[in-house]
Amino acid sequence: MEFKISKEFITEIESLISAKNEQAILQLLEDIHFADIAELMNELKSVDAGYLFKLLDSEISSEILLELDDEVREKILSELSAKEIAEELDEMDTDDAVDIIAELSEEMKDEVISELEDFEHAKDIVELLRYDEDTAGGLMAKEYIQVNENWNVLTCIQEIRKQAENVSRVHSIYVVDDEERLKGRLSLKDLITSSTTTKVLDIYIPKVDSVKVDTEDTEVARIMQKYDLEAIPVVDETNRLVGRITIDDIVDVIKEEADRDYQMAAGISQDVEADDSIWELTKARLPWLMLALIGSFVAVSVSQTFSDAMEEYKILFFFTPLIAAMAGNVGVQSSAIIVQGIANNSLTGSLFKRLTKEMLLSLFNSTILAVILLFGTHFLMETTYEMSFTIGTALVMVMVIASLIGTFVPILLNKYGIDPAIATGPFITTSNDIFGIFIYFSIAKIILGF
Amino acid sequence: MEFKISKEFITEIESLISAKNEQAILQLLEDIHFADIAELMNELKSVDAGYLFKLLDSEISSEILLELDDEVREKILSELSAKEIAEELDEMDTDDAVDIIAELSEEMKDEVISELEDFEHAKDIVELLRYDEDTAGGLMAKEYIQVNENWNVLTCIQEIRKQAENVSRVHSIYVVDDEERLKGRLSLKDLITSSTTTKVLDIYIPKVDSVKVDTEDTEVARIMQKYDLEAIPVVDETNRLVGRITIDDIVDVIKEEADRDYQMAAGISQDVEADDSIWELTKARLPWLMLALIGSFVAVSVSQTFSDAMEEYKILFFFTPLIAAMAGNVGVQSSAIIVQGIANNSLTGSLFKRLTKEMLLSLFNSTILAVILLFGTHFLMETTYEMSFTIGTALVMVMVIASLIGTFVPILLNKYGIDPAIATGPFITTSNDIFGIFIYFSIAKIILGF
Repeated sequence: MEFKISKEFITEIESLISAKNEQAILQLLEDIHFADIAELMNELKSVDAGYLFKLLDSEISSEILLELDDEVREKILSELSAKEIAEELDEMDTDDAVDIIAELSEEMKDEVISELEDFEHAKDIVELLRYDEDTAGGLMAKEYIQVNENWNVLTCIQEIRKQAENVSRVHSIYVVDDEERLKGRLSLKDLITSSTTTKVLDIYIPKVDSVKVDTEDTEVARIMQKYDLEAIPVVDETNRLVGRITIDDIVDVIKEEADRDYQMAAGISQDVEADDSIWELTKARLPWLMLALIGSFVAVSVSQTFSDAMEEYKILFFFTPLIAAMAGNVGVQSSAIIVQGIANNSLTGSLFKRLTKEMLLSLFNSTILAVILLFGTHFLMETTYEMSFTIGTALVMVMVIASLIGTFVPILLNKYGIDPAIATGPFITTSNDIFGIFIYFSIAKIILGF
Repeated sequence: MEFKISKEFITEIESLISAKNEQAILQLLEDIHFADIAELMNELKSVDAGYLFKLLDSEISSEILLELDDEVREKILSELSAKEIAEELDEMDTDDAVDIIAELSEEMKDEVISELEDFEHAKDIVELLRYDEDTAGGLMAKEYIQVNENWNVLTCIQEIRKQAENVSRVHSIYVVDDEERLKGRLSLKDLITSSTTTKVLDIYIPKVDSVKVDTEDTEVARIMQKYDLEAIPVVDETNRLVGRITIDDIVDVIKEEADRDYQMAAGISQDVEADDSIWELTKARLPWLMLALIGSFVAVSVSQTFSDAMEEYKILFFFTPLIAAMAGNVGVQSSAIIVQGIANNSLTGSLFKRLTKEMLLSLFNSTILAVILLFGTHFLMETTYEMSFTIGTALVMVMVIASLIGTFVPILLNKYGIDPAIATGPFITTSNDIFGIFIYFSIAKIILGF
């Protein structure tokens, strides 16, 4: 069951905050999940949110900090001292602490680290800060349970009790040798169902999937999904166990990747949200619009080179937006399917076969559309048969070529290590505008002979 | 570490299959993860895949069945008897078994169920089949661990050992009362760190998030993400515990939803993949192209009503594709941000404020673009100042209105319970084509006076 923040609730909190009624506030928030308090704070004025934040216990406030919207968190962090931030970080898992530290300025970073109370925790955080945030190293946490292959179940349970104090959720128990090299894992089930004198060596599962510290985050996500894993250990170059990644971090990676692809397809670069500032949104949107404007301008220039035909074949020029739109639509469809196929790793077979299939598909679809258009123009607009035939033929040609471009470009980009998602959206619609209009008028020129 | 299926490996398997060398095949596949074998089978000819499938132990083949591509699975299932399918299902968790059964024909369904060996398992499957697949009931499994609040830790551990035989991964231990109503959960950590005589009542955590059987799957995904849960119990109307959902099922829901939204934005309905048949792809793509064609045809008719101006203001007509393209681009940007905001539940504030913001944003962006265009047309195309001014002004107006439509329509659709993702893609570009062209010529008519 989820708690829904009502307007009344926000008003109540606001009035309690302005009355500085600490006790009533704490009482009101007592049974509310930190994720809901974070949502509430996102809605409050920043002074109120800051006041509320300082009121809460660091055990809860540290969780809230991780759930807040970026801007709200930034504001709150800017009002905390290095010592206060360190107190929050002391409560967090290392991977989360690193995410927060990464948002701080360079000097603040060092100050905060020096204020951390738990030395082990600080050491782990400093280690994690070394890794690129888009790799397994950047995702992993140091909170995991590790047992030596030579221990018995009793020692394991005692050690796990000790280690578990720092680990909020026990996922897997990793088995290492004396050099801390990853050997396998121990299932919790086997542990609680084995006798206490059993040796780890005899019950551990020697097969365990792992990733290297420098594996890309999207690759980690793919592997964890494929093998249906809830946690995966991370090893360094010498196979030493150095961290673990859990599925909830992967859920974020998957969502971010999907959001990014979606925004790219819509012509929005960078990760923006509806509630970001106009300036942030402009930065994400204007470059694509600029590109589209320049591309369209080229398309206009192309059509202008055929302006001699305008006197005699007016109708041809009315249809340019339709041709351009259809080229764009079919191009986006084709590229979206390829981009998704690449993302899901489900593209198989040769490029030639793929292009042939796409050609057949678009030939089939565009012919149906061309016949409809042919009747539409002839009967509704009373164009000559010759003109209707010209527009229809051009539509087929333009759509086939646009769909081939839409198929080819993302595959090509991906081959050269460029994110194929760039190829969707304004990029493909605009380049298809240019090609489409050129092909359209060229075909018209051949058939109508101007 | 991931196993990569090489071409050589496939060739090797193929030749072993044609030689019917069972032993060598089994030896070769022995250390390979079922997810990899499934990938291999997706690549094989269907007779070969079928042969391989029957060769494998049902413990592994049942896992493979779940990982196969839909078409491959369908073929393999069609070649199995009801008894053989039942054997596979006997190895699966109830939620997975239900997914497979749902793909069978009605008669086959009943036959397979009657062939299931484990009566409890069959009963659970039949129960799960009752629920809509897009709800918590459709996602949940019956494999979970449940203890009575009146037991002590020792009884718990004994019971868990018994129940754990059917549960592949122990997530949470749910605590129920004598009426099987969900009371809370027991943490594994607390269980293994408490003395055996402790009562469950004294150590269980009384707060536990749960969802109702009829909660929508995307809502379950949202709740589990928000509260960072790896498993969530499902209760019926009387709060009786009836199942549990794990995060790996939710990962699929999230991915499917993101894929669907992405495809919608690209004008592709239904869930298709690059490797689907031309007929499947046509069904998903042609309707949107048809809609776009009809819409563009209307846009053409609109521009035709202004044809009297063509003699004097040729240049105006060259620019219609540019105006239409920019209207489409900005409309898609605006709607994508709103659709994503709705999906992430992050839209706050009033509609009026949102429209005002979008208006300011697009006014700002389009003015910059209009100034560029003004210089571009005047200096590169040598249009009159009056004409450049007309096109620039129209661009601003068209873009502002297109972005407002892009913002308003998805919010409106969502309010009436229609998937707002429909509003992106061809729908928004086409309707913006029509509005855009009309506004463009209307403004030109006012300024230029034709």
